[in-house]
Amino acid sequence: MGMREVQSTYTVSIEYDKRLYKQDIAGSVAHARMLARQEIISAGEAEDIVRGLREISLEIETGKFPWRPSLEDIHMNIERRLFEKIGDTAGRLHTARSRNDQVALDVRMYARECCDDVKGLLRGLRGVLVELASSNARVIMPGYTHLQRAQPVLFAHHMLAYFEMFGRDARRFAQARESADVMPLGSGALAGLPYPVDRRFVADQLGFSRVSANSMDAVSDRDYLLEFQAAAAICMMHLSRMAEELIIWSSEEFGFIRLSDEYTTGSSIMPQKRNPDFAEIARGKTGRVYGNLMAMLTLLKGLPMTYNRDLQEDKEGFLDSVSTLTATLAVFADMLPGMTLDRERMLEAANGGYVLATDIADYLVERGMPFREAHGVVARLSNHAAELGSRFDELPLDVYRGFSELFDEDVLKISVESSVGARDVHGGTAFARVAEAIEAARAELEAEHGG
Amino acid sequence: MGMREVQSTYTVSIEYDKRLYKQDIAGSVAHARMLARQEIISAGEAEDIVRGLREISLEIETGKFPWRPSLEDIHMNIERRLFEKIGDTAGRLHTARSRNDQVALDVRMYARECCDDVKGLLRGLRGVLVELASSNARVIMPGYTHLQRAQPVLFAHHMLAYFEMFGRDARRFAQARESADVMPLGSGALAGLPYPVDRRFVADQLGFSRVSANSMDAVSDRDYLLEFQAAAAICMMHLSRMAEELIIWSSEEFGFIRLSDEYTTGSSIMPQKRNPDFAEIARGKTGRVYGNLMAMLTLLKGLPMTYNRDLQEDKEGFLDSVSTLTATLAVFADMLPGMTLDRERMLEAANGGYVLATDIADYLVERGMPFREAHGVVARLSNHAAELGSRFDELPLDVYRGFSELFDEDVLKISVESSVGARDVHGGTAFARVAEAIEAARAELEAEHGG
Amino acid sequence: MGMREVQSTYTVSIEYDKRLYKQDIAGSVAHARMLARQEIISAGEAEDIVRGLREISLEIETGKFPWRPSLEDIHMNIERRLFEKIGDTAGRLHTARSRNDQVALDVRMYARECCDDVKGLLRGLRGVLVELASSNARVIMPGYTHLQRAQPVLFAHHMLAYFEMFGRDARRFAQARESADVMPLGSGALAGLPYPVDRRFVADQLGFSRVSANSMDAVSDRDYLLEFQAAAAICMMHLSRMAEELIIWSSEEFGFIRLSDEYTTGSSIMPQKRNPDFAEIARGKTGRVYGNLMAMLTLLKGLPMTYNRDLQEDKEGFLDSVSTLTATLAVFADMLPGMTLDRERMLEAANGGYVLATDIADYLVERGMPFREAHGVVARLSNHAAELGSRFDELPLDVYRGFSELFDEDVLKISVESSVGARDVHGGTAFARVAEAIEAARAELEAEHGG
Amino acid sequence: MGMREVQSTYTVSIEYDKRLYKQDIAGSVAHARMLARQEIISAGEAEDIVRGLREISLEIETGKFPWRPSLEDIHMNIERRLFEKIGDTAGRLHTARSRNDQVALDVRMYARECCDDVKGLLRGLRGVLVELASSNARVIMPGYTHLQRAQPVLFAHHMLAYFEMFGRDARRFAQARESADVMPLGSGALAGLPYPVDRRFVADQLGFSRVSANSMDAVSDRDYLLEFQAAAAICMMHLSRMAEELIIWSSEEFGFIRLSDEYTTGSSIMPQKRNPDFAEIARGKTGRVYGNLMAMLTLLKGLPMTYNRDLQEDKEGFLDSVSTLTATLAVFADMLPGMTLDRERMLEAANGGYVLATDIADYLVERGMPFREAHGVVARLSNHAAELGSRFDELPLDVYRGFSELFDEDVLKISVESSVGARDVHGGTAFARVAEAIEAARAELEAEHGG
Repeated sequence: MGMREVQSTYTVSIEYDKRLYKQDIAGSVAHARMLARQEIISAGEAEDIVRGLREISLEIETGKFPWRPSLEDIHMNIERRLFEKIGDTAGRLHTARSRNDQVALDVRMYARECCDDVKGLLRGLRGVLVELASSNARVIMPGYTHLQRAQPVLFAHHMLAYFEMFGRDARRFAQARESADVMPLGSGALAGLPYPVDRRFVADQLGFSRVSANSMDAVSDRDYLLEFQAAAAICMMHLSRMAEELIIWSSEEFGFIRLSDEYTTGSSIMPQKRNPDFAEIARGKTGRVYGNLMAMLTLLKGLPMTYNRDLQEDKEGFLDSVSTLTATLAVFADMLPGMTLDRERMLEAANGGYVLATDIADYLVERGMPFREAHGVVARLSNHAAELGSRFDELPLDVYRGFSELFDEDVLKISVESSVGARDVHGGTAFARVAEAIEAARAELEAEHGG
Repeated sequence: MGMREVQSTYTVSIEYDKRLYKQDIAGSVAHARMLARQEIISAGEAEDIVRGLREISLEIETGKFPWRPSLEDIHMNIERRLFEKIGDTAGRLHTARSRNDQVALDVRMYARECCDDVKGLLRGLRGVLVELASSNARVIMPGYTHLQRAQPVLFAHHMLAYFEMFGRDARRFAQARESADVMPLGSGALAGLPYPVDRRFVADQLGFSRVSANSMDAVSDRDYLLEFQAAAAICMMHLSRMAEELIIWSSEEFGFIRLSDEYTTGSSIMPQKRNPDFAEIARGKTGRVYGNLMAMLTLLKGLPMTYNRDLQEDKEGFLDSVSTLTATLAVFADMLPGMTLDRERMLEAANGGYVLATDIADYLVERGMPFREAHGVVARLSNHAAELGSRFDELPLDVYRGFSELFDEDVLKISVESSVGARDVHGGTAFARVAEAIEAARAELEAEHGG
Repeated sequence: MGMREVQSTYTVSIEYDKRLYKQDIAGSVAHARMLARQEIISAGEAEDIVRGLREISLEIETGKFPWRPSLEDIHMNIERRLFEKIGDTAGRLHTARSRNDQVALDVRMYARECCDDVKGLLRGLRGVLVELASSNARVIMPGYTHLQRAQPVLFAHHMLAYFEMFGRDARRFAQARESADVMPLGSGALAGLPYPVDRRFVADQLGFSRVSANSMDAVSDRDYLLEFQAAAAICMMHLSRMAEELIIWSSEEFGFIRLSDEYTTGSSIMPQKRNPDFAEIARGKTGRVYGNLMAMLTLLKGLPMTYNRDLQEDKEGFLDSVSTLTATLAVFADMLPGMTLDRERMLEAANGGYVLATDIADYLVERGMPFREAHGVVARLSNHAAELGSRFDELPLDVYRGFSELFDEDVLKISVESSVGARDVHGGTAFARVAEAIEAARAELEAEHGG
Repeated sequence: MGMREVQSTYTVSIEYDKRLYKQDIAGSVAHARMLARQEIISAGEAEDIVRGLREISLEIETGKFPWRPSLEDIHMNIERRLFEKIGDTAGRLHTARSRNDQVALDVRMYARECCDDVKGLLRGLRGVLVELASSNARVIMPGYTHLQRAQPVLFAHHMLAYFEMFGRDARRFAQARESADVMPLGSGALAGLPYPVDRRFVADQLGFSRVSANSMDAVSDRDYLLEFQAAAAICMMHLSRMAEELIIWSSEEFGFIRLSDEYTTGSSIMPQKRNPDFAEIARGKTGRVYGNLMAMLTLLKGLPMTYNRDLQEDKEGFLDSVSTLTATLAVFADMLPGMTLDRERMLEAANGGYVLATDIADYLVERGMPFREAHGVVARLSNHAAELGSRFDELPLDVYRGFSELFDEDVLKISVESSVGARDVHGGTAFARVAEAIEAARAELEAEHGG
């Protein structure tokens, strides 16, 4: 690449900011109408401008728009085209507007839509999780701490843990949307405008709730993008945790699940091999979303007021995070329903590893033994069982009674099922509680849909 | 350091998690009361526990508590001490609670308080900014884009841009507080509890609005810490921008401000040198807060459910961000009122650099010249003035008229004052608008104070 | 985008990994030749393969290659095309090679070239800095600490500080190249190969110094990419520091330099405004390179051995850092020579701010006054001069002598020139030392060029 | 904390920079000697200074030094103490030295030692890996890609993959050491010094290979810290990968290893539970080292020349990375030898999952079948075996021959052992190759030890 080419591409953003064309045109239409309404331009001029912009919109959507990289960005591309279409009247559009507040407007509108898209995808994925929980309502698996089996839990309960995480994510994107929902036009280059503009009118036209309160802040505020990026990083973190579990559960050693052919690749030679590629790529893509957040924070560090050209770099990473996150959410929502559970292996694993020890201790506590003492008894019992190579539910009563007189027939009824059933507290894994949680989740999704 | 020492310190957290002692004790008190109320332990046992914990609290506050690093964390230190005080009854406290939900509770309570502290400091800083704006209401300075003089603005307007930023920060910490405000106790190790606990009672005792909905999620959710850290990173970014401006304005070349002796260090040999050390350190500390956020995101990436010991690393970076941010906010709130403005240099700078060009173009537009054409006229006029070495307001009318017949006597009245005054739009820098903004800011702070 | 489209694009890398086509083909050619040499395939087969690959190479270079995104990556695109060209013999190429070691090979070869490119650009930029120093050998400016004027320095000395930084960068890229310079082919999928391959022969064909020592490591090692990315982050940090200085020096308040029209954008209305857009964008792009490094570190954190599909995400950020860094280096090398210095303003600034205080204290120390005492004398003198509004060199001798009897006529000779001249130590700013440094720099560049 | 306390602690670094006391004293001793040698101070003065500093050193080592936080940093603490000990002569030490080059010197010396420490620890850990490989030379386990069993490998081969990684780490720390190994004293505040100092003499006294070439660069260069931090981040990444494997292998489902009691914590109630806490914490601590790197990169971004107080923030994160990395390396070196392998489960796993498919295909290729065709045959054979629920080595010959006539008796000899043995290429997993690799590794460690 020659120097002139390097130089001319260094400042160019059209390759990615063309994604903002709808917002740019909608913003200009609203601005033109306001200018006419305030008699800053004539009604006829406004009509010409709006017509020209509509034609441009159509050209872009039908692939007929003559993109010119030499014009650097989406704004200049549209501006120049408008001149070609309606002549000098095009110039009237730039009355009472600067590039600084125009760019801020476009990105805010785009960010608002992205938040809506992500919220829709999160709702979809949460719906999938609820259905997965509901249709596997009695599947028991080991719950893990430290990747060591700890206590039996319902698979449905496990899925609903993710339902909670993605619910918090949805809230964060709602907050980012609220931050984006501020109309900056009227801030001019940095100081405001010497025209009798009606900012509230423009805001209403474009569906904004608020109008920015300080022009210097308005042209350099990118907090809403940082909020989006932080929310995206946290959401990808949740997805990476789920991806990790899908990968581990898909290993031959765990063997809990089988992902569908669409979301695995086999080896050409070992067809039974099922590499969980999509889950792995999702886990890997977490890095880029973290990186985009870090890039944006670095970009803004120590920037003096107000607009600095550094800010042009605000979009590419943001758009990449949008694409990455929305694709990953879509992939998970489509991948999860096609997953097959090996319920027997899950149950078998839940029965292994002395995961009922806590329940047996609780049994003793219930019969009056102090907590710490009960722990000691069960620890000795566990060791004894391990030496025998037996599971708890394979030990006869007299073995139990050898460790404490408090043991009675009903200790033999302790099982993974009874263990699960006993966690009968709000948020616990008991069947009834999980059924309640499923209902609550459905109600939440419906309320959200209506709201 | 010998191997045994390395090993024994590797898992120790007491050096930093001792900051959570109040929360740990308050949580235990509430838990003990609930256990008694639900008749899981006796009223007498609960009383002993509460009394013992109160003594421990007093010991810590008076510096008499025997900290034991070998006990690794705050929880074990208090637990052991309680045994020493009340004997085996201490063990009853651990009924229906696990370390996993206990830790989650403590950190949430601590995070909630940190959010409140930060919000208080932000309110203080915003108050300082409003007073600075108010007491310098007519000071004019250049507004910059690209660090080039662009248009004259009020210093007050500039300060209020920061008022807006810190207002958004306050909102983010309020949201992080809301995320923290969920009571996790009752989740047990991961699956819930086989005891008839009253989670709502505990929540009420500790002032929580909500109770966690899923036990597996509750013991591994650290989203609220990430939200705090992201909010802290954005807030430090704002502070770094202000720090950068204070540093630049303190340079001999700009010479706009003079920071007080307390917040600068002189050279022992050049007493008139005023290094803005506090602003520089604040700018530098931005990095550590970004780093803490990145550390936490990395920590959580790809962690399978539920509790993993990695999570122990959640606190130190968080606590460091809390300390860094609160100290920086306090420093700024104390440093800004002591700053002296050199109003003359600011005004002189605002008069330099042809910053009135936009106003002269606007003058022509107002008289009917199309926007782009007006730009061309003023560009040629600027060049001419630059050749003459004159400012716009030093040119006689006939020079103006040589460039356009539309110029009239009143063009000579265009000045930085008239320029500022003309930006008479909501959010603009006009005197009246800024006065309005100051009133609105005061009202907002008062409402926040009352609310 | 429909679900099938999301799904099919999620795993696709061809949009960016096509940049590796040359490496992929060269690697395959070497592999085919080795296979024939070792009689694993026939000479005729190898010839067909090599011919086919050469045709493909030509097709790509002339824009005639039929890229198929559905084939996901560069390797499958070339592989399929080879089948179309030479039929089933194409399949022989995959004997004794897996996708895992093939990808590793391609990226290593590409990274090696990138290191060479960057080193070339760094040499170019360093050459520019030396010439800038040489052609402005006597320009004096203030040296700053804390952005406060501290001591006069030569502009040439300042430029050579950057020469040092970029020299260290060059060394880091040389080290990254060395890390990349390991031939992984022969590692198979992960365990090595059951064929009598000649790994050394392939390495020689492709110009590699070493052959990888462990197959499991070889297919998952991405350290060389991390080294490149870390080196790129540090280099961008240096460029961001220079960018910051160019931006500050371009402000009206400093007014030290004027960047050329090509590297600034004016306002359409304020033609004398010169926004240093390229420097600002460079400073902003620092963020993305930091972000790419962080993305890659996150990606690799906690990945179990050996190849995981997450690793596919290793390339895009790396390639982005390569493009960003090489473009930025090229921009700086082209931008700096076109910069105009305002030597008078620089000198004037160097004379302001009592920057000679240190020299006056040194004068007293040389005459026997203890260091700390001399500091005190000059501090009082500075204050006095500041009150008078005089520079040091404007004070008459008797004023000096009023502060110490040790002052003599020759104190009046202290000037920024004498101050600069006095720093006559290796690495100091004295004219002779800087001239020496320029010579040394030239020699270093020539040696590097020859080497 | 009151405002005065916040303010006074904000700039204080003594809590962490006291770790640099040895370097500070050694640097001062060398400087004093040089000053005397160059007759800038008298021999007697130098002797007093050196004696005073020696006493201070002893005070610090014996815990008798009166640390004063109000003096902010290590340099002022020592300086003040020296005044108390030897009176005004202490002031002579500051002739021809500034705080800027003094700090740079201390940190460089400290960083150099840290590199040496890390290299020593890496050598130790690599030795452990070699012994682990050597003493388990015939243990076979599955090699994984995508966490799916792919091909059998030797456990020893797997360990040696980590040997390679840590070898590259050692090289990076050697390079960071080289970067640190530049003597900055003589740079003064920024411009050099007006004294006839002998910089080479000081460098020799302190064991530096080089002297800095540009004073402005020397006082603001922190590249060596960034190199250290980047190297630390990559090394922690390697450790996190190993930690992840230890955690997965410790799960009941894998059951490949059992970590010793010292490096696991059991449940009080499930004594057979072995939570791999140290491995988990190590994985978690990776985040903080990444974060420290990011903090430092952020800190330096866009800093104008030369020294800015932001740079004070360079040390704390660096020191934290040093502590974290050295402790983690020590933990791994001590933890690994105590790990018990379950060889039977490893072998059993290696025999599962049709990991011999590649070998059977290779068998056919060797007998002349084209590669792709052989793949197809084995794919069908795998599917058939999976339907039968048989492993490959349980199928009779006629089943094989039903899929291809090329199969012969010797196909029945294909086993995990023969598979491992067949990878007989440099870097491959064949017994002989791994034995060779072990020898080479030992030789490398010995050479390093000698070197």
